[in-house]
Amino acid sequence: MRPEQPYRTIIENVQPTVDGGLHPIKRVPGEVIDVTADIFTDGHDILRALLRWRSLDPAGVPNGGWLECPLVALGNDEWTAAIHVEREGWMEYHVEAWVDRFATWRRDLLKKHQARQDVTSELLEGAAMVRAVADRIDPPGSGGEARRVERPTGVDTDAAWLRASAAVLAGEARQDVRVQAAEDPHLLAQMERHAERFAAVSSPVYSALVEPVRARFGAWYEMFPRSAGPDPRRSATFDEAAQRLPEIAALGFDVLYLPPIHPIGRTFRKGPNNTLTAGPNDPGSPWAIGSEAGGHKAVEPGLGDLDAFDRFLARARALGLEIALDLAFQCSPDHPYVKSHPEWFRHRPDGTIKYAENPPKKYQDIYPFDFECTDWPALWDELKSVVEFWIDHGVHIFRVDNPHTKPFRFWQWLIREIRAYRPGIVFLSEAFTRPTVMKHLAKIGFSQSYSYFTWKNSKPDLMEWLAEFVQSDVHEYMRLNLFANTPDILHEYLQKGGRPAFQVRLILAATLGATYGIYSGFELCEGRAVPGTEEYLDSEKYQFRKWDWDRPGHIKALVAHVNVLRRENPALQNDGSLTFHACDNPHVIAYSKQDRNRSNLLLTIVNLHPFDTQHAMVQVPVVEWGLDPQHYQVDDLLSGEHYHWRGEWNYVRLDPGFRPAHILRVPAMRREHHAGHPSTPPPAVMPGH
Amino acid sequence: MRPEQPYRTIIENVQPTVDGGLHPIKRVPGEVIDVTADIFTDGHDILRALLRWRSLDPAGVPNGGWLECPLVALGNDEWTAAIHVEREGWMEYHVEAWVDRFATWRRDLLKKHQARQDVTSELLEGAAMVRAVADRIDPPGSGGEARRVERPTGVDTDAAWLRASAAVLAGEARQDVRVQAAEDPHLLAQMERHAERFAAVSSPVYSALVEPVRARFGAWYEMFPRSAGPDPRRSATFDEAAQRLPEIAALGFDVLYLPPIHPIGRTFRKGPNNTLTAGPNDPGSPWAIGSEAGGHKAVEPGLGDLDAFDRFLARARALGLEIALDLAFQCSPDHPYVKSHPEWFRHRPDGTIKYAENPPKKYQDIYPFDFECTDWPALWDELKSVVEFWIDHGVHIFRVDNPHTKPFRFWQWLIREIRAYRPGIVFLSEAFTRPTVMKHLAKIGFSQSYSYFTWKNSKPDLMEWLAEFVQSDVHEYMRLNLFANTPDILHEYLQKGGRPAFQVRLILAATLGATYGIYSGFELCEGRAVPGTEEYLDSEKYQFRKWDWDRPGHIKALVAHVNVLRRENPALQNDGSLTFHACDNPHVIAYSKQDRNRSNLLLTIVNLHPFDTQHAMVQVPVVEWGLDPQHYQVDDLLSGEHYHWRGEWNYVRLDPGFRPAHILRVPAMRREHHAGHPSTPPPAVMPGH
Repeated sequence: MRPEQPYRTIIENVQPTVDGGLHPIKRVPGEVIDVTADIFTDGHDILRALLRWRSLDPAGVPNGGWLECPLVALGNDEWTAAIHVEREGWMEYHVEAWVDRFATWRRDLLKKHQARQDVTSELLEGAAMVRAVADRIDPPGSGGEARRVERPTGVDTDAAWLRASAAVLAGEARQDVRVQAAEDPHLLAQMERHAERFAAVSSPVYSALVEPVRARFGAWYEMFPRSAGPDPRRSATFDEAAQRLPEIAALGFDVLYLPPIHPIGRTFRKGPNNTLTAGPNDPGSPWAIGSEAGGHKAVEPGLGDLDAFDRFLARARALGLEIALDLAFQCSPDHPYVKSHPEWFRHRPDGTIKYAENPPKKYQDIYPFDFECTDWPALWDELKSVVEFWIDHGVHIFRVDNPHTKPFRFWQWLIREIRAYRPGIVFLSEAFTRPTVMKHLAKIGFSQSYSYFTWKNSKPDLMEWLAEFVQSDVHEYMRLNLFANTPDILHEYLQKGGRPAFQVRLILAATLGATYGIYSGFELCEGRAVPGTEEYLDSEKYQFRKWDWDRPGHIKALVAHVNVLRRENPALQNDGSLTFHACDNPHVIAYSKQDRNRSNLLLTIVNLHPFDTQHAMVQVPVVEWGLDPQHYQVDDLLSGEHYHWRGEWNYVRLDPGFRPAHILRVPAMRREHHAGHPSTPPPAVMPGH
Repeated sequence: MRPEQPYRTIIENVQPTVDGGLHPIKRVPGEVIDVTADIFTDGHDILRALLRWRSLDPAGVPNGGWLECPLVALGNDEWTAAIHVEREGWMEYHVEAWVDRFATWRRDLLKKHQARQDVTSELLEGAAMVRAVADRIDPPGSGGEARRVERPTGVDTDAAWLRASAAVLAGEARQDVRVQAAEDPHLLAQMERHAERFAAVSSPVYSALVEPVRARFGAWYEMFPRSAGPDPRRSATFDEAAQRLPEIAALGFDVLYLPPIHPIGRTFRKGPNNTLTAGPNDPGSPWAIGSEAGGHKAVEPGLGDLDAFDRFLARARALGLEIALDLAFQCSPDHPYVKSHPEWFRHRPDGTIKYAENPPKKYQDIYPFDFECTDWPALWDELKSVVEFWIDHGVHIFRVDNPHTKPFRFWQWLIREIRAYRPGIVFLSEAFTRPTVMKHLAKIGFSQSYSYFTWKNSKPDLMEWLAEFVQSDVHEYMRLNLFANTPDILHEYLQKGGRPAFQVRLILAATLGATYGIYSGFELCEGRAVPGTEEYLDSEKYQFRKWDWDRPGHIKALVAHVNVLRRENPALQNDGSLTFHACDNPHVIAYSKQDRNRSNLLLTIVNLHPFDTQHAMVQVPVVEWGLDPQHYQVDDLLSGEHYHWRGEWNYVRLDPGFRPAHILRVPAMRREHHAGHPSTPPPAVMPGH
């Protein structure tokens, strides 16, 4: 089959894209999409290439037409242009290119004229091209009122101007005067504005999901509200837990994540330290959801009722704290669904419902849903209604428990359905599993992902793990949330390293990750574990606790300070700029982050050894950063001290007790973007053709 | 939108593919497609994944159904299996995967039984699964003759056997007896054979173009037949040129490429050494095609007529030489098309036809076609008919002149149309241009491409250029033809290096490239150039020549020897296995090639210095190759000598006059393929479901 037109332009290798366009790239407002593509044609003709984009409303309906800006050729057939992302929702983008006959004619005409060749014939050719465009945009004899209202402003004027130019080109003036008319940049601009785009080709249309800034940047704090009260023998209420909110806000956190707040089952309830038998006053694990008091749309009576939750959320929001709820799609044997919808669970031949198991282990307190059951559409709809229920109660962020044990297609559908009317909802994936699985969850819609950070404590481990993330295209669709601890993970480094270990891990998490988090108790340097495990001793997962929030040795001042630095420094609000720097001490790690224009550049240097002072030489890329190698000053944002450095290699001394790290502001030269990477505001954006 | 089924399996990153499946990968019969994919599901269920493929006839109609073999898990969600390519034409392949409920049940049952748990309920479940399969493949009450003929052989027997197994599982026997029945591998095999493939997912279907072996492996010889005769004052005829064929065949060449053989235009004919004025007896350039004697479907009268060409081709083929013709889609001003189809060319405003130009340069002897002209479909069809004309005259290989100056879509269409009825036609692209363009021509159908080889003469240049080619996935769709010289390129290295330079470049071309070529005169060490250029002095492009084919100093014995080695050693018949080895001398290059099973492994070591003897230590990967580090013998296939080597580093001495290179056969241990990479014959290939 012959193509429809004699297409001559090829567009290949459009980036960024995810799996060839199968999944969207991700951005937040204020970010940029630096698009590149290989664009070429046969022979030597000049190409014109446009980057085109438009925003869609959440349901996928375009908001107005395509915007366009020209791509710029970088050489070797690579072209580039940038889109400045403005609002949340969906975006589409693609590249269009065609052979620019007029520009090619113009270039060849000028070359021949310079070589003193006669160009009479060429000038007539050009005049015909110009006249043809004028006639196309303003057909002769099509005057009258009606036509005026249908056409873009200025077309009449443009056509008249083009006709005048054509007359000069084809006229009787001296040849160099006519060539000058051909050279007029305004003529080129007019011809490009009204280009016919003959045999234009387009790349596929790719999509971008634009999420709220919180999807990329935020400090998270996790707490069990039931343990945030005055009496460790009973659940604290939401109203009591709300007393904690001012301090959490004052520490500089943005998101407060609560484990499940729903009624907890009785059957096979777990006792303290995960024992199989619970006493009558043991509260059980919040992840064993559902009792006669209700299921996923109810509040555990010990915490209060829905009104109490609403009050708690309102109080938090007033303090600048978003509430993140846990989505744990599983049931205790006492969940109302078990009676009302037994068909949503797996059954044994004798008709009883199967509990969760990973043979030979049994989890008798949990009934998993059967996402493949005959009536799966009804189950999926019901679970979606759970999310909608809490959105209606003001929740904008969900931390999804073990998403990798439920079908990927379920999450893909659910998240897309929710975003179709509420694009600003953020989903955090709690999947500690194989890289392909974690990445796939990011591709299909999760805004953020838990990471391996808790287990990356040595310098090579940290560098290898993050370098892979930053250097590949993974960061186009996956954002990490660097929790420093969780109710399930108290790493040996923290158990044994004491207060300095907590300081180190806090600084690492908060400066390596645009999004990071701590689980409450971290700021108290709580490090007591069930021996030989990463489990907290007397874990809040299974019992009520009461804490002294001013316990000696806490690091709340450091937490608050670091969170202020995060808010003040755009460099710490992105992950894509992370760069590691050479350092001659295996216990000292050095890395920098910067914003897009390098108006904010931070060099962080951390002593990973929780006991011993370390000395190190750190390499600074003075040339790349445009520093004066004779002298430059770096300011430690942690200590307030200033250092006068020179050359590439500089000395640091980091003492675990006193100064575990430097966070140095470097006065680097603001980066000039390549012509093809326009900075704000974007040049030459125009409505599409 | 909810998916149609509750799909749970994800297939990503299927390789090899080209641009996500937009273009086919390429193979020849006897090669293998090692397919890999990332395949995973939620949770811990066992997956079953099949690689499926089928061949299509040239027009794209499937030859029978899909064949299947299981993919094997390599860990970290990577799976693999191999397709053994058997015949020319098109192939399609894809990956299908689903959650294997029976295998999952079986694994969990055995784990529980090992942990001494009661599995009564589980055995009943399994019995139900087995019974359901039996009932599906052999519905109860569906007996009779009619059904028997419609169903695959053995289904009745299988169903009966499955029912018996189900009865044991659900029966009254001791539990360990029933578990033993569940463990029976035959039961698993039966259940997999008849698997329901519930909610199976598939990757996209990818295609492979299977070309004749000559597309990958061949030695080319280029000659101007008009200069292959006894009288340099006139054109040799095809019958005279045929006298050369026995020697060319005896030198071991497979393909004989002829520059255009068509009538040559008179208007603006070029004289000797590309002068602008030709004398009355100057023959002109064969690329200025067309005169009153005919165009692209005619033979230059000086060479004879079509019958003479047919005789020449028949003679060559009888000697094992395929004729490759030049496809130069351009016209001299005297071409019959200019009169009969002026609309196929570009015109000036005064109605005259435009010659080729690259301003300010003018090529008045050439009229390019206007592939975008109004009547482009008729032009494209006519050009296709040219290819068909010569195919009808027995030509199977075309060397396409400057394809990058004609639209890519034209070639894509033309080549696909030709292959739809003649899949065995080989197209060589003569595009010396930017990498994106050369690669794109390969993607859209060209079998082979000219390369930068002529300009890669130093060790780092050679290594960098070929490493990029071999290490990337380019070799999945692009094959290089390493011409050592062409009528347009006599590199300075050959001009100045004398006979040793020709020896070196011959050995490099013939051992680095599965396909390579020389232009006649190379074997005579003809190195006289137009000073300061890469053009031959008194080039055959513009004048008749007569050669003494036994001129002193020729290297015909070496050419013949190397071509024999190429035919005898499968290692030299592929490019994908090329590996460079460390060597401590900057003038000495060392590389190996091997066949898929490493039953043939050659280590080639070449002294690139045409004047000085070089000493070097070369590193041999003794461990990877399974050599005894205490002693191994390598046999020089060039000199017939044997060397006794030990350890990794060994000494060589290469003398430009006498021994420019070693081609060493290494007795390496035959490679055992991973279970997932089955060797011939493929295991478990079965007709599709």
